[in-house]
Amino acid sequence: MRLLASTDFALRVLMRLAAEPTARPMSVEALARDLGGLSRNHLHKIVQDLAALGAVRTVRGAGGGVRLAAPPEALSVGALIRRLEGDQPIVECFRADAGTCTLSPGCRLRGFLRDAREDFYRRLDGQTVADCLPAPRAPAGAIAGAG
Amino acid sequence: MRLLASTDFALRVLMRLAAEPTARPMSVEALARDLGGLSRNHLHKIVQDLAALGAVRTVRGAGGGVRLAAPPEALSVGALIRRLEGDQPIVECFRADAGTCTLSPGCRLRGFLRDAREDFYRRLDGQTVADCLPAPRAPAGAIAGAG
Repeated sequence: MRLLASTDFALRVLMRLAAEPTARPMSVEALARDLGGLSRNHLHKIVQDLAALGAVRTVRGAGGGVRLAAPPEALSVGALIRRLEGDQPIVECFRADAGTCTLSPGCRLRGFLRDAREDFYRRLDGQTVADCLPAPRAPAGAIAGAG
Repeated sequence: MRLLASTDFALRVLMRLAAEPTARPMSVEALARDLGGLSRNHLHKIVQDLAALGAVRTVRGAGGGVRLAAPPEALSVGALIRRLEGDQPIVECFRADAGTCTLSPGCRLRGFLRDAREDFYRRLDGQTVADCLPAPRAPAGAIAGAG
């Protein structure tokens, strides 16, 4: 079972932005560097998709870049993956343009796979981008052990 | 989220064999025809994989072909998919040869996705190839409504 490469990268973009200790937007160049070998063109497309979902905001001009549009604690991994994966079929034969399969009429595998996918998403609904990070984020300016 | 095309076809091969009303093995040609546009080479590879898993048997010679190695009620969809999908990573960045991502150390998304995948498989563990067919199979020679 695989997620789309673009879903993987989108989650990593959000995690990287969530891990950013400064309030400044990150440049696409810095994101590409930190996420290991992602092309700028691919990253631009992913940022556009995340902006369309309301997960990030892009800031133009000097010091511009990308930043989260919501606190990472408010970004559900399950909700994000559902939307990033869209309605692509789990298996090839569920495509509308798939070849004719004599099993299609009354095939019950389709429903079983959909139920299973829902279980997959449901498990992730309770996880947020903040949960994916290695350690709890300290508020800006906070000192460990204080306040 | 997608399964491998080969997993999709392997399940369909098993479903087609389970739906076969005769006890005779099916030829690869007949399977390819019924499953809609699958190449013979691809199908041969899938049959080999299914034989290695103990799900089908190939019969040589005249009247030979492929048949189920176990009753379809004994073939768990979840167990089959776990083995057919193997240990391929859910997302690209989990590959051992993936580029360096600065999020990797301590990334908790990995564990969340594995747990979610386990939920996906678990839902299918209780379903069998027989369950995937449109209607209950009648025993050979049975007459609807009788005994």
